[in-house]
Amino acid sequence: MTSKVLALLDAFSPSTPALTLSELARRTGMPLPTVYRRAAELVAWGALERGDDGRYRIGLRLWEVGSLAPRGLGLRELALPVMEDLYEVTHENVQLAVRQDLELVFIERIAGRHAVPVLTRVGGRFALHATGVGLVLLAHAPAEVQEQVLAAPLERYTELTITDPKRLRRCLAEVRRAGYAVSDRQVTMDALSVAAPIRVPEGVVAAISLVVAHDRADPVALAPLVQAAGRVVSRALNSSTGSAV
Amino acid sequence: MTSKVLALLDAFSPSTPALTLSELARRTGMPLPTVYRRAAELVAWGALERGDDGRYRIGLRLWEVGSLAPRGLGLRELALPVMEDLYEVTHENVQLAVRQDLELVFIERIAGRHAVPVLTRVGGRFALHATGVGLVLLAHAPAEVQEQVLAAPLERYTELTITDPKRLRRCLAEVRRAGYAVSDRQVTMDALSVAAPIRVPEGVVAAISLVVAHDRADPVALAPLVQAAGRVVSRALNSSTGSAV
Repeated sequence: MTSKVLALLDAFSPSTPALTLSELARRTGMPLPTVYRRAAELVAWGALERGDDGRYRIGLRLWEVGSLAPRGLGLRELALPVMEDLYEVTHENVQLAVRQDLELVFIERIAGRHAVPVLTRVGGRFALHATGVGLVLLAHAPAEVQEQVLAAPLERYTELTITDPKRLRRCLAEVRRAGYAVSDRQVTMDALSVAAPIRVPEGVVAAISLVVAHDRADPVALAPLVQAAGRVVSRALNSSTGSAV
Repeated sequence: MTSKVLALLDAFSPSTPALTLSELARRTGMPLPTVYRRAAELVAWGALERGDDGRYRIGLRLWEVGSLAPRGLGLRELALPVMEDLYEVTHENVQLAVRQDLELVFIERIAGRHAVPVLTRVGGRFALHATGVGLVLLAHAPAEVQEQVLAAPLERYTELTITDPKRLRRCLAEVRRAGYAVSDRQVTMDALSVAAPIRVPEGVVAAISLVVAHDRADPVALAPLVQAAGRVVSRALNSSTGSAV
């Protein structure tokens, strides 16, 4: 069954990257012999690797196949030169994200060494309603996605996180009008991010942002820089054939 | 069956990243209705995505799970600051690779804008016997891996590629003795690479290299720089717990 294979993969997460056989059985609800047999097949193919400690981890072969995802490495390869330019001229954190269901996934990050610390991890997820990239992705998401996010409880990260659906709705309208989003201390009290959309003819497919220390940030000055970067990546994306990001 | 799910994923490659249903059926040898049903399950989970053009591509969810591979993004995150340092002081191409079976897989690459063009692609594979990173990985591979590579035909990329097993065996011994590998125009006639091992107590798990234009390269000067970088990544790897790279 396809679903059993996928359930095994689902058991792994950033907080549980290495699992024993019995942990796999517990997390998937499958009997131990079934898990053992399927895990062995996945190891043989390279989707899982078993370490000297007996734990299973995601294998390099799965990483290789995953690298073929247009919205992952494909997008990253197109955006990276532009992200490096943004980093060179600002020495701040640069981030690239896409929406997956009701969350965002960070596709790439350049961390400024002396910039404000950020918690993002490539491949990691985050809520849409707090970060700059999240606000851009949410503002341009299909109406049903927006309604689902607005209807669910909005987690509070700081005292400035927007948790009132009505305020968030107005904020999203402003993001669409302005062409960029500002998240001012809405994730952590020391950081501000400015994000802009990356578009294809069908709509916004990704967002790029600068994350800077709140006390030295000037969003009005940063916005054109980030918007220009978003437009360069958009153009690269639209001229690459068959990417279907 | 696990194997049928994996066969569907196997159909995708860097040269065939987007496939129609009938192409999937042809490549996997499965009947069309079976392929259709399994592909739909993979789409529902996010392992595949179906574009407006009707073609299937690897989905972001698989990229997310793949990002948990210790030998993929885990290694890359530890190595990236060191690779950036190497790039800053040389402005040349920097590469990071691991061995998978009888080939190498490029885990990360920083491409110098004005440096010699290189063909490597993150997630892409290459033979072990020609590049600098490949020679390091092969020199420190288990004996049975070395014998398999030496017994198979060694592809010629340029007139300087080592294709004689006896010469290659001597070259590998020299790589182990020197602590670094030099590939001088053995992949393309304009490039030279210098590579060094990344080690854990159990052995060499990855290799890092600089790829420079052959006519401005001084391998003897570059070697200590690359070896030092390899040692910094090794130390980072050994002090990170439970990585099992």
